[in-house]
Formats: sequence, structure tokens, C-alpha cells
Amino acid sequence: MSHPAGVSPDTPDRAARAFVHEFSEGSKEQKRLLGGKGANLAEMTNLGLPVPPGFTISTEACRYYLAEGHEPPGLADEVDRHLARLEAERGKRLGAREDPLLVSVRSGAMYSMPGMMDTVLDIGLHDGSVAGLAAESGDERFAWDSYRRLIQMFGKTVLGIDGGLFDAALDRAKRDRGVRSDLGLGVEDLRELVAEHKAIVRDRSGREFPQDAREQVDMAVRAVFESWNTDRARAYRRQERIPHDLGTAVNVMAMVYGNLGPDSGTGVAFTRDPATGRPGVYGDYLRDAQGEDVVAGIRNTVPLQELEDIDKHSYDELMRIMARLEGHYKDLCDIEFTIERGKLWMLQTRVGKRTAAAAFRMAAQLVDDGVIDLDEALRRVTGAQLAQLMFPQFDRRSGITAFAHGVPASPGAAVGAVVFDSAEAVARDADGERVILVRQETSPDDLPGMLAADGILTSRGGKTSHAAVVARGMGKTCVVGAEDIAIDLERRRFTGPGVEVGEGDVISVDGTTGAVYRGEIAVVPSPVMRDLESGRDGEAGRGAEGAAGGAGEEPGADGESGVVHAVRRLMRHADDVRRLAVHANADTPEDAARARRFGAHGIGLCRTEHMFLGERRRYVEDLILAESQQQRDKALEALLPLQRDDFTGILEAMDGLPVTIRLIDPPLHEFLPDLTGLAVKVAVARERGAPDAGDLRLLQAVRKQHEQNPMLGLRGVRLGLVVPGLVAMQVRAVAEAAVARTRAGGTPRPEIMVPLVGGVEELELLRTEIDAVLADVRAAAGVDVPIAVGTMIELPRAALTAGRIATVAEFFSFGTNDLTQTTWGFSRDDVEGAFFPAYLDKGVFTVSPFEALDEEGVGRLIEIAVAEGRAARPGLVIGVCGEHGGDPSSVRFFDQAGLDYVSCSPYRVPVARLEAGRSAVTASEGGSDTR
Amino acid sequence: MSHPAGVSPDTPDRAARAFVHEFSEGSKEQKRLLGGKGANLAEMTNLGLPVPPGFTISTEACRYYLAEGHEPPGLADEVDRHLARLEAERGKRLGAREDPLLVSVRSGAMYSMPGMMDTVLDIGLHDGSVAGLAAESGDERFAWDSYRRLIQMFGKTVLGIDGGLFDAALDRAKRDRGVRSDLGLGVEDLRELVAEHKAIVRDRSGREFPQDAREQVDMAVRAVFESWNTDRARAYRRQERIPHDLGTAVNVMAMVYGNLGPDSGTGVAFTRDPATGRPGVYGDYLRDAQGEDVVAGIRNTVPLQELEDIDKHSYDELMRIMARLEGHYKDLCDIEFTIERGKLWMLQTRVGKRTAAAAFRMAAQLVDDGVIDLDEALRRVTGAQLAQLMFPQFDRRSGITAFAHGVPASPGAAVGAVVFDSAEAVARDADGERVILVRQETSPDDLPGMLAADGILTSRGGKTSHAAVVARGMGKTCVVGAEDIAIDLERRRFTGPGVEVGEGDVISVDGTTGAVYRGEIAVVPSPVMRDLESGRDGEAGRGAEGAAGGAGEEPGADGESGVVHAVRRLMRHADDVRRLAVHANADTPEDAARARRFGAHGIGLCRTEHMFLGERRRYVEDLILAESQQQRDKALEALLPLQRDDFTGILEAMDGLPVTIRLIDPPLHEFLPDLTGLAVKVAVARERGAPDAGDLRLLQAVRKQHEQNPMLGLRGVRLGLVVPGLVAMQVRAVAEAAVARTRAGGTPRPEIMVPLVGGVEELELLRTEIDAVLADVRAAAGVDVPIAVGTMIELPRAALTAGRIATVAEFFSFGTNDLTQTTWGFSRDDVEGAFFPAYLDKGVFTVSPFEALDEEGVGRLIEIAVAEGRAARPGLVIGVCGEHGGDPSSVRFFDQAGLDYVSCSPYRVPVARLEAGRSAVTASEGGSDTR
Repeated sequence: MSHPAGVSPDTPDRAARAFVHEFSEGSKEQKRLLGGKGANLAEMTNLGLPVPPGFTISTEACRYYLAEGHEPPGLADEVDRHLARLEAERGKRLGAREDPLLVSVRSGAMYSMPGMMDTVLDIGLHDGSVAGLAAESGDERFAWDSYRRLIQMFGKTVLGIDGGLFDAALDRAKRDRGVRSDLGLGVEDLRELVAEHKAIVRDRSGREFPQDAREQVDMAVRAVFESWNTDRARAYRRQERIPHDLGTAVNVMAMVYGNLGPDSGTGVAFTRDPATGRPGVYGDYLRDAQGEDVVAGIRNTVPLQELEDIDKHSYDELMRIMARLEGHYKDLCDIEFTIERGKLWMLQTRVGKRTAAAAFRMAAQLVDDGVIDLDEALRRVTGAQLAQLMFPQFDRRSGITAFAHGVPASPGAAVGAVVFDSAEAVARDADGERVILVRQETSPDDLPGMLAADGILTSRGGKTSHAAVVARGMGKTCVVGAEDIAIDLERRRFTGPGVEVGEGDVISVDGTTGAVYRGEIAVVPSPVMRDLESGRDGEAGRGAEGAAGGAGEEPGADGESGVVHAVRRLMRHADDVRRLAVHANADTPEDAARARRFGAHGIGLCRTEHMFLGERRRYVEDLILAESQQQRDKALEALLPLQRDDFTGILEAMDGLPVTIRLIDPPLHEFLPDLTGLAVKVAVARERGAPDAGDLRLLQAVRKQHEQNPMLGLRGVRLGLVVPGLVAMQVRAVAEAAVARTRAGGTPRPEIMVPLVGGVEELELLRTEIDAVLADVRAAAGVDVPIAVGTMIELPRAALTAGRIATVAEFFSFGTNDLTQTTWGFSRDDVEGAFFPAYLDKGVFTVSPFEALDEEGVGRLIEIAVAEGRAARPGLVIGVCGEHGGDPSSVRFFDQAGLDYVSCSPYRVPVARLEAGRSAVTASEGGSDTR
Repeated sequence: MSHPAGVSPDTPDRAARAFVHEFSEGSKEQKRLLGGKGANLAEMTNLGLPVPPGFTISTEACRYYLAEGHEPPGLADEVDRHLARLEAERGKRLGAREDPLLVSVRSGAMYSMPGMMDTVLDIGLHDGSVAGLAAESGDERFAWDSYRRLIQMFGKTVLGIDGGLFDAALDRAKRDRGVRSDLGLGVEDLRELVAEHKAIVRDRSGREFPQDAREQVDMAVRAVFESWNTDRARAYRRQERIPHDLGTAVNVMAMVYGNLGPDSGTGVAFTRDPATGRPGVYGDYLRDAQGEDVVAGIRNTVPLQELEDIDKHSYDELMRIMARLEGHYKDLCDIEFTIERGKLWMLQTRVGKRTAAAAFRMAAQLVDDGVIDLDEALRRVTGAQLAQLMFPQFDRRSGITAFAHGVPASPGAAVGAVVFDSAEAVARDADGERVILVRQETSPDDLPGMLAADGILTSRGGKTSHAAVVARGMGKTCVVGAEDIAIDLERRRFTGPGVEVGEGDVISVDGTTGAVYRGEIAVVPSPVMRDLESGRDGEAGRGAEGAAGGAGEEPGADGESGVVHAVRRLMRHADDVRRLAVHANADTPEDAARARRFGAHGIGLCRTEHMFLGERRRYVEDLILAESQQQRDKALEALLPLQRDDFTGILEAMDGLPVTIRLIDPPLHEFLPDLTGLAVKVAVARERGAPDAGDLRLLQAVRKQHEQNPMLGLRGVRLGLVVPGLVAMQVRAVAEAAVARTRAGGTPRPEIMVPLVGGVEELELLRTEIDAVLADVRAAAGVDVPIAVGTMIELPRAALTAGRIATVAEFFSFGTNDLTQTTWGFSRDDVEGAFFPAYLDKGVFTVSPFEALDEEGVGRLIEIAVAEGRAARPGLVIGVCGEHGGDPSSVRFFDQAGLDYVSCSPYRVPVARLEAGRSAVTASEGGSDTR
């Protein structure tokens, strides 16, 4: 259906393209069009709750404005018409001198977003209407208080004047008057304050405070539109992966007044405890105040419970409405309300934010209450929340309170002596001391110190700062942007609110909450982690233990076991519904056993190079320095029994489950000393006399093997094709271990995986050698253990030629670390410090592609390889063993791409299980958003 | 149409699936089915030329045999039937004691291929039939000579016995008899020799020489099939990029005898001179001999001209036939023939191999003769041949003859003192001496010596050996596998046929022909190169000079100008027909001017980092070491006027043509000293007292900037986004240079190209900065020079997201070096020495993907980027500026992929022009093969 251009403004089509919508016209499903605030106001309006009348200017209007630089044609007329309706409904006129209509203008994007213009109240007041408002309300003080609020908010948020100027004027007035609260100011004081505020506006903006009410509305709307693109808003969106092209809506609502005396007030409330998820009454109330005062902390609020004594009627109504809202939203709601002379008005509601523990408890509780089903409960928790719950925690019984808070950048609980630079950190670490590196911000120079430290604390920067990015990469506890503290490098100390901390003093840093404590707080293992590792949560424990919640801990006073039981319950459901299997990356029997306890159904990546370290390094040196095949064979012969024992142990730990063993991958020279260090050692020795002959020989070998870009050098399958006997030794060790396990009555299921294949020819050549060794061992042992041979897909070319590779590979496993490196052309080692922070800051990435899979580039290669690999070999088993296998958002991609399993570090196995379950219920539901 | 299985053997369908074809059933177009030899025998048969009757067993039968391990069912019957026809036609029976039918069995693949079993003559003789052959021919000596030949050839090629054993027996017989030629052996000698040969067969193969004629045929056929897969054959195919799955045909032909006395003989002939292309009589003849004797050099042949005196009738007929063949094939043919008692028989013909010079001359000559058109002439020459003609050559007037020949591995003419190891090469090179590195074979240890040497000579290895691969990569003259020479490292000398060469002696090495000369031969520039650089060959010269061949050199005695004119003519046609434009990679005004003379229509890649070397390095050091933006700006300000002058010069040299300037690409630390060297210097200085403060500071900076994998580090667009002011300086320099040129009356056409983009976000950010600078310069100058901004596509992710990138990039240029590195995950620097030789040897590559584009992997990314880039921005200009832009086979791929231009080094411009033309006429013709 198409319509001619210039269609009449009153046709339904025109109406569908309207930019302004009455609250009564919308619903909570229309967040994209009306923003979260507008959609929920519409929902409440249609539920019959007491919402002041008003309308929403849609995100479409904002997008138009931002793209074109001016309001869409017709918007002014629409706003006119809707204001006229509002005036009619309230029986007041905007800008009138007598009984004027005042409105609030509030932003409201699809996702809640700090950094955007929030709210301007009392719009419509001007010099000529203050008296009229005073007359109508019978409260002259209220009228002047409203006017000074308007000028202050308008000046700050619409005109962009430093808010501190207005605050200073207010403080001065209170000081002059000798009162502590703004309630102590009288009519005259407020009248003078208005004059001062107007002077500030005149001075700073070069114009008078606008006296035209309609102009005030238009300017406020435009300011909301423009606040979508402030640096802070953009930075926030990048961090939270919110698209930049959504735009914000604007809500215009008739004012109701919480500042009309002691029978008025304003408050916020939660339908249950957002920290624990427990039902109950949670909130704050402030008498004789308008909205901002509650959050601004100008006066002390009272607990919401006290409202029952102040105004039982409103309290009871609020309780009824809150129960109604939670029943309707089937979730924790948070609420803003105002009471105007005993009449309750609802100003906002939304599904409330919550802690990780609360998310799990609440989801399980709502299932118990019959409000939601298990699928929905699963959709309401995230792998990231589960990961938080698995970190060790500070013992809450310590009673110590934090002296500063920053942005929680990398979770964990770290305790140590404060150091202020890298050298000190390294020195103390070398002495066995645990240290916390405290810096204003970090740079690549601080890397040694960050490595040496147990935790990192900075006074500047956000979640994408250098410290945050690097610490997350290292898995170090990190809090950034703790703006309360001031570092004095000269005097080797920092100060925080009421504390002074010197170098060497012990502090405790909570990377999960952002809190910083003085002294040492005991760290306790996470009860969720303990339970997950016990295997009682999911499939592993199901058979052994019977029904859910059977054994062990009863819900205790601190609610810990409530979380444990909730996690256990949701994990079981995730295991029931997920299609994707979860394997683990593990190189030792201990790690393999741990992974199995965590619910892994196999080893997806058993690296063999880790088995060449320590004592065995000398055999590898022999191998590299060998000058004949005989010497080489001797080194390999020494390694064979050691490797066989390695594999026997792992196959035993994973008996009955697949163990994918990757042939040696890194360049052999990684087993040799560093070139620069050795060259310096030899040069210095030469100065002093004569260098050691062994060192000289080694230096020669190191020089010979040195590569400019080892990541792109002689490694992976290339090693196997160039170093005679190396692959044969490893394959023989695997096969002989399998034979040994079979003879011992076990069910070994080893698989051999060839790394870094770029073309089918490489794999063909190596398979010929592998198959010969397998046949040889089989014949010698008289035992037939089937051993599949497959390949990693970790180079773009492997993905692009996967159809041909699948004719030779019996399985695929994506190595997403290398695939990301080569697809993007940057190495993880080299770039994280050098430019990732800048890239995150500028928005090139919303998140490091080494953390969350780059679906557009790397993901496209994966999709090509899956489709063409399976076309060539139907039923081809495909997994992923890069670190993305444990990343929540990536797991969903792998599920939808049709992979058979993800493999991740043992500790990530529960997260991957949960996310695989969530992916299953999300796919079936058709998409849900947990932001 | 489909037929039920088990169709009757006599239906046409069955016939179509026959494995055996009479010569009269085929044609020269059926090389894939019948092999080259069989198809041409069929063609000659149908032309009515005197070809002995016979039949061809098809390549299909071979493929079946190799796949299944046995002959296809029914093949034996088919061979029976065709042998019966042959018997009927010749009136003789195979294996009969009286007047036996003898046949030859010869291999014949689609492409001529050394390394496969070639020929067994005289099949059908056995103890019982020698007398019959003697009686029928009236020549007992002939019969026994044929029998000893059969046993010798059969033993060697079918039974795999060392041929030297038979040769030794023959030599012994000649020695015993005191004769120098086999013609001196009598019947008894030959009878004894047969007994000895049979004993060799018995000893070595463990079986008697087969006495059943039909068994001889079957064994020979099977041996031909199996010879397809010998190591040598496989290696040859890899080198020549011939598919491994073609298989070979087998030709069975009735014997005609050149060894029936002085009125018999055998010879080879060319229809014109394969070295120059000049028409005439070229060939060799050997009386009283069978085929192999001519090539084996057992006796001395006579020039073909002498046949006119020996047997005028046969000679005249041969001349008529050769004229007929050349007219029919419209090309140089080479021929094998036999004269049996005055009767001429044609045994083989094919389009003959030729030198590069002959290829051009002949193609032009055939156009003049009206035999072929210019399109066809273009199809008959290659860019590789043109490249050969462009190298300097040894002065042919020197009269010195080569003392050894090897495989020509990397073209050029090199003269220098012989050295036997890397250290000596480096030392003499440092003293300003030119050296030739002579090694048995080379390894990565020899790289410094190879770099220092002017030429490389090895006594072992083929075109894919380490020396060959690395030398080609370096562009060094190289001859490998000169098996005539023996190197004595102890005594620092090598010996060749009749010469002894010591270290320091001067030799001359011709990388184009493989010849090695004693002493210094003068090197003369290539006349073709001189002419191409003059611009007289193509478009550049067309306007200035008028009609073809107008000026300069007349054809001289040495035929040089004939080649020059032929090249000029074909280049002009290539320019007329090609769709693809040819640009050049050039960084200096001199290179730009040269490229223009060579016919480049623009600069496709102007690298700017080369402009930071020498004196300017210190500004880059300042830039890197800067500790504040102020210091950084100062360094950039110093660079700005220098860069501006660079660009002004290049824009002047290329006035009116596009100049694509790439922003700085390599990591900045490449401008700093090497870490290891500097660390050693500082450590040694510290030992001796105190290190230099500047060195210490530099070392700190080098350590800080050090990257594990600089190829994957802070370079390209990343630099631009991280180093403030760097891009702005370069863009300003470009824009101001353009303004200066415009004011000087020029027509500058600069374009700005951003390297190493992986995502559109990077380009967006940098474009904002670039556009601002361009606007700024435009406003300040009041001159509007349009400057397009585009990007390189050199990372897999750029290709995979090309659709989005094209929304911001005004042009694309593929950087195929980096794209190959990242697609395959290996760096050119690191892997060429380390594993490419092994990979080429094992057949993973047929050619280095850095030489010829990897169409399957890298090519697929290019196709994706072209399609999706053009979909997003119709008409998007797309080129390639990696080194593949000058590679003959890759140029064709780029043309067919729809690129607008290729850009290559100035010297490669003519090659690219020619190949672009060939691609145009090949595409229109539907595929031609020049192998």
C-alpha cells in the first residue's frame, strides 16, 4: 500500500505518522517509539492509575531533529493541539497570568541512560504568572519556590549554565538568613533568589530568562533532543552497547506539586528489596519537596514506612498500586510518586535494577509464586550476573564500611599494601607481599606493576579506561574512577573522605561493587561457587542427589543459601532446555576434574605446549638445537613417555567423555630464552672475560629462530610439517595413552586436533602421517581405540575454504582468539595496551573483540565455515574453544550459528551453561532484552 | 537423458564411454581426453599425413586406474579389439613367431610433462619372434638390436631397474669389441647383450623378461598410468600449476623402424627457429637409429638440412608436411619423424616451446603473414616472457661459452667474485666488491649472504628450492641445480666440466637462461626495456610519434630490433583492448616519472613512510619521544613543509593523473633503533663506565614501543587515531601541495588513502579529521582542489564489511600483501625462509601466495568486497596496489573480478599492461591455455 504524497493531515495514515502521542494512546511495549518513561506512563494511565495527564513526543521526532538540525514540520502544530487538550482537561492555560498551567518536560529514551538531560519542572511560570499561581494555590511561598526552581533547572539543563552558580546563590541565601534548610526561606528570600537566578541567566547566557511559556516548552524539548548526543551520553551508550541512532522521546506532563506544604511530598519506592529480591516496602519519602530534592540529598529523606504515619490514606493507596504494578509487570518495579495535598500521583515506573543475587532470588521466587514460568525466570538472569556471584567476596560480617566508591571495573576481592608506582609494586611483589596499585590513571608504562599487583585502584576513568580494559584482560580486581580520593605522589599517600592512606598501608578493594575499605577484610569464597563446584547444581549432581534443594544448607539469616538454591534451580532448567553442549579448556587432570565438577561434558581444548615447561624445557631445547635427525629423535623419545602419562591422566579424569587434544601450537623458540636478555648477558660476559660456551650456542640458536612476528610465524600445523617426528611423537603418546586406559578398563575418547590450518593440503599431509602412527599403535597393541582427527578453524582462509577442509577433517573447532587476531589484523598482546582504550573511548569498539565476539566480521567467517563445512560433511561436529566460548553474549551467537558445543575455562563452564539455556529460551521466545 | 544401468555394450552411449580411441577418431581439441600426443596424432591422421596406425587409451582409463587401483572393467576387451584391428591393418600378429607386429607404448598427458614414463619401443618381441623379425626384415642385426633395445627400455621404465646397468653392459660390449658406436656391434654381440640384459632383469626384478607380447603391452600401459604419480611428476606439476587429477593417456602405435640400415633414420624438427622465431629449417637427424638415440646423444646427429642430400624424397616430403602443419596449427610446430627404408613416418607433433624473444617475433610475424589476428597474437605471448625480455642481458658478442647450465630460477645477469659462505659474502660486499654466492643449496642461515650477493648459484635443487624461492622474493639473479659443478668447501673452490673456480674468481651467471660463464661478461641493458621506457611502445608514445614502428631502430643483424618492434606492436594492441587501467606504486618524483614513461596512468600507491628516512628520521624520533602535545606539534611542524615538497614534486610528475597517497602505515618504532642492538650497546657501555644519557632515554622509548608482533600492532589507521596531529599534518601537506600545483597552473589529482582499516568506525573517525583539515586548507587558500578520500582493503574484516566501509570510502584499493598475510596468518618476513621451501616441496602451495594471488582464499575476500562495496556505492572505483598488481596470473584474476585498475612497481607496468590486454582477449575468446 502506498499513499500519494501530501496526504490530508487527518487521514489515519497521517495519524500513524504523528510525532506526539497522548499517554492514553500508548503501552509498555512501545519503548522504541515512546521511550521507557513514556511507554510506562502510558501503561499506568491505561491501568487507571493516577497519572497526571500529558503526552509524549516520540523518538522519531528526535531522530528527525538530530538528522536535519530542526524540528520536523508539523511538530509545533501537534504540540499546540496536545497542549490545548491538556489545558482543557486541567481547566488552566499555559502562560496565563491567572491560575497558569505548569508542566514538566522530561527525557525518556528506550534504555535508561545517565548523562542525558533529565527533567525541568514548573515550566510555564514567568514574572507575570507567579502571583496567579500564588493566588490559586493560596501559598505565595510555594509560587516563588516553584519559580526559583524553574529558573535554576532551566538555566542549568536547557541553557547549559554551571549549576554550581545557582546552588551557591541558594546557599548564600540560607546563610544570610541563618537557616539550614530551604524550608527556612520565606517569600521575600525566594523573591530575591529569583532575581539573583535571573541575573545569573542574563550574565551567563547573554539573554533574559524567557517569559513566554510556550517558548520555554520548545526550548526544553530541543534541549532534550540535543542531550542525546552529549559526550557523556555517547560514552555511556558505547559502554552499554546501545545503538547511537535510537534517539530519545520527550514527556510533557501537567505539574503536580509536592512542595505545597506538609501534606505534600515526593518519594521513590521499590516493590521489593533490589539488593536481595525479598518482598517488602523499600523506599524514601521527603515532605514538602519536588522530585529532584529526594535524589539530590538536600534534606534528609525518611524511610517509606513512615509515610503510613504521615498520610495513611496515600500510603495504603501506594501499597495497592505497587502490588498491582508488580503483578502487572511480573517483576520488581521502581516508582516515583508525588503527594499533592493528600492526593497521590504516579510520576514514573520501570522494571527496577537489582543486584546479581537479587536477580536470581527474585526470578526463583516469582516462579514459586506462580507469576512467571522457568523459561521467563531464565531470561531474567544473565551469565554476567552469575559470574559476579562466583567471585570470592569480602566477609560482610566484618562491619567495616567503605571510605570510597568507584566504578567496579573488574570483579573480585583484593587485599594488599598500597603502592603508587610500578617499580614499588614489582619490588614488593618479588618480596612476596600482596599489593594494590593506586594511580590517578594507568598507561602502558604501568603494565609491570599491574601484573605484580593483586588489585588496581584509580581515581579517574571509567569502564573503558586503560586500567579497566587491561585489568579485565588480566583477570585482576579493579576499581576505577574513585573520584573521592586524591593522590599525592610527592608525599606517597592518598586522602579520601576522612582518611589518609600512606604507601604500605593495607586496603581492601571490591571489584564487584566498587567499594574501597581501609585495612584488611577477610575474603570468603563465594557460596554459589562452592555449590557449583560441588556439582549439586545441575546435571552432574542430579543423579547422585535426587530432587532439587535436597541436601546441605538451609536458608540462613544472611540469605546466602537462598541465592545458592535459586542458582541451582535456574542452572537445572538451563541444562534442561539448552541445545548447546558445554566443554572445557583444560590441560591437566586437576583442571579436567574441576571442569567435570562444574558440569563440562568434555574437554574441548587440551593444550599440549603447557606440558613442555619446567623440567621438560631442556628436552625441547635439545629438540630445537638438534643438528641431526638422530639427536632430534633422541629428544622426542625422552618426551614420549612424559606426554603419554599426561594424556593418560587427563583421559582418566574425563573417562567416557571426549577429550580434544591439540597438537603443539606455539613457535618452538618460545621455549628458548628471550633474545635481548640473552644478547645482553653474552655481551656483558664478553666485556668481563669470556661468555659461557653454552650461552653462545644458545644465542646463535635464538637468533636463528627469531621471528619478527612470531604470531604469524612457524607454528601450528607448520611446525608439524617442518619438524620431523614432532607430530608423530605426540600422536603416538595420545594413542598409547588411550590403549593404556582401555586396558585399565576405562573408556577413553581422545580426539586429535591440528592447529592453524589454512588450507586442506596442510591437513591432508599431516593426516597421512597421523593415520600411519595410529594404525601402527593399533597394530602393535591389538586394541582399537577410535580417535577422530579434526582441525581448528582459526584463520580466515580456513573459514573461507572450510568446505574443502571438511573433506579431510572429522570435526571443526573455532579458535576465536587467533581468528579475531587475523581477521582484524591485530595481536592481542600488542594492542590491548597500545590502542584499545583509545578505540573504546572513541567508540570504534563498544567492547573488545577479544571479550565479546565480533559478530559482523569474525562471526561472518564462522557462519560461512559452518554452512560450507556441513554441506561438505553432513553432521560435522563443530565447537569453539577460543576464550569467547565463555562469554555470555558470544555463547548466544554460537548457539544461533548452529555450533554443537562451546568450550571455555573450567570456571566459566557454569556461565556458559546458563547462557546456552538462556539462548534456547530466548530463541524460542523471539528475543528479549535484559538491559 | 539418462540410461538404465547395464546398457548394451554396442549402443552409441557405450561407445561414447569407450576408453580406447583409434587415431582416426580424435582431433587436436581433445587433449584433455587423449593427451597432447594422442590428440595431435589423431589430427595428423585426419590430415592424411603418414602416421603409423594405432590407438589411444584415454586419460579416463588412467584416472579410473589410479583411483581404484586396477584397470576399468572392459578395458582389456577394448584393447584386444583395437589390437586386432591394428593386426588386420598391418597384416601382422602381435607376439607371432613369424613377421611379428611390434608396437610402441608412449605416455601423453594433456600438458607435456617430464618425469613421467616416456616411451617403450619394439614391444612384442620375445625369444621366439626375433628370428621371425630378422627373416621378414632380412636384417638379423636389426632384429637383435631391436630386442636389446626393448629389454633395456622395458627393464628401465616398466620394471624400474636402474638404467645405468644396461648402459654399462652396452658400454662393456663396445669396449670388448673395440668399437665406439653401437653400430659397430654385430649380431653375435647383440645376441650376447640380450642375454646379459635378460640376466639384469632377472637379477633386479626377480622375474624373467616377459615372453608374452600381450603381457608386455599390459605391463607397459600400467607403468605409464603409474608414472603419473612419481615424485618427479608430482613435483613438476606443482611447479607448473598442473592439476594432479588429469591423468595421462597412453598411445599404442605400430612400430616403424629407423634402425633398418643407412636408408633409415630418425629425427626431430621445428617449423621455424624456436630461439628467434625466424622461418627456416631447424632440426637434427640420425641415421640407422631409433627415437631415443637422437635425444640421448649416443651418436652425433647431423643438421636436418643434410637430410636433403641423404634422402631428397623424404626431405621434400618432410618440408611439405611441416609447411602444412604450421599452416594448420598457425604456430611453430615441433616434430618427431622416422624414415624406414626411404618411407617417411610422422611420430609426433606439437606446438613447440620457444624463447621469450621468439614468442613475440613469431606472433607479430604470423599477424603480418595474415595467419592469425592481433588478438590471437596477444594470447600467444605472456607477461612472464615480457618480463624476461626486460632484464639486462649478457652481451652476446662476448663469444664466451657457458661451462655449466642449471635451472634458471630468478632472471637477470649477475657478475661477481665467487664466495662460498655468507660471512665472506657480507665481508666482500661491505668492501664494495660484487659477489656471487655459490652453495650446494641454501638455508635460512644463508640469508645475509644472499642479501649481500649480486647473484646466487647452487648445485642442487629446483625452481622451488630455498635458494630459488628466496632469490625471486629478493629479485636477485639466481641459477639453481647446476649439477655439472662440484663444490669443495674445504679447498674453497668448485669444479665444473673442464674448469676449476676458486674463491674470489669472477664468474657470470645468467638467471634467464641458467647459463654460468667463467670471467666477466659485459652486461647490456635490454633493448626491449630501453624501448618500453622510451614510451614509444604504447599509448604514451602514440600521440607523439604517429604510426607504429616509425622511428629509431631498423631491424639489425642480431634481430634485436625485430623483438623490439614485435613487443611494441603487441603492447599497443594490449592497450587497445584492455579494460583494466594500470597505475604504478611510486614514492618519488623520479619513480613517478619513470612509471609514466612505462605507460602508467596514475600512481596507485604513494607510500609516505619512505619520506621519513635519512635526515628526517630525527623529527620522527622527536615525535615519538615527545612528552607533550607541544613537543609533538613541534616535530610535526618541522615535517610539514618537507612532506608538502614531496607531494608537490610527485603531483608535478603525474600532472593530470590520479596520485593515491597512503597515510603513514608502519609502526613508528620502526624509525627507532633495534631493541637488542641498543640494549647490548647500553649494557656494554655500563660495564665500561656509564652509558650515554641519550642512549638510555632512547632505550626506554624503544622498550616502551616494542611490540611482539609489529605487523599486528600500532600501525595504519590505528596510528592516525592514537597519535594526535599526525594525520592532520599529512593531509595538510597533501592539500597545500595541491593548492601550490594549482596555482602553478597544474592539474593535481591527489587522493588520500587510509591504510589498515578493519571497521567503518575507524574510517568515519579519521574522515572527520581529514575533512576538517581539507576544508581548512580550502578556506585559507581560496582554491578548491577536490581530494577523494578512500581506504585500503587489506584486512579480512575490511573485505567482510566492505558494504559498510563503502558508505564512507570514496574508493577501495586492495593491499594484497597484508591481505594475504592476515588471511593465511603468516608474515612474509618470517615464513619465506622458514617453511615456504618445505611447503612448496610438499605441494601445499604450487607457488608462493605472495607471488601469485591465492584466488581461493584471498580472492574470495576480494570478490566479496567488490560485490558488496559496489552494491553500497555504485560505481565505486576499486584497484589493487599490493605486489600482485604486477603478477601476470593475478592481473587476469583482478580483471575478471571487475577491478578498475592494478598498480604495481614501475618496471612491472608494461607486464601488467600486456596481461590486462591478454585477459581482455582471453575473456572474449572463452579461455586459452599457454602452457
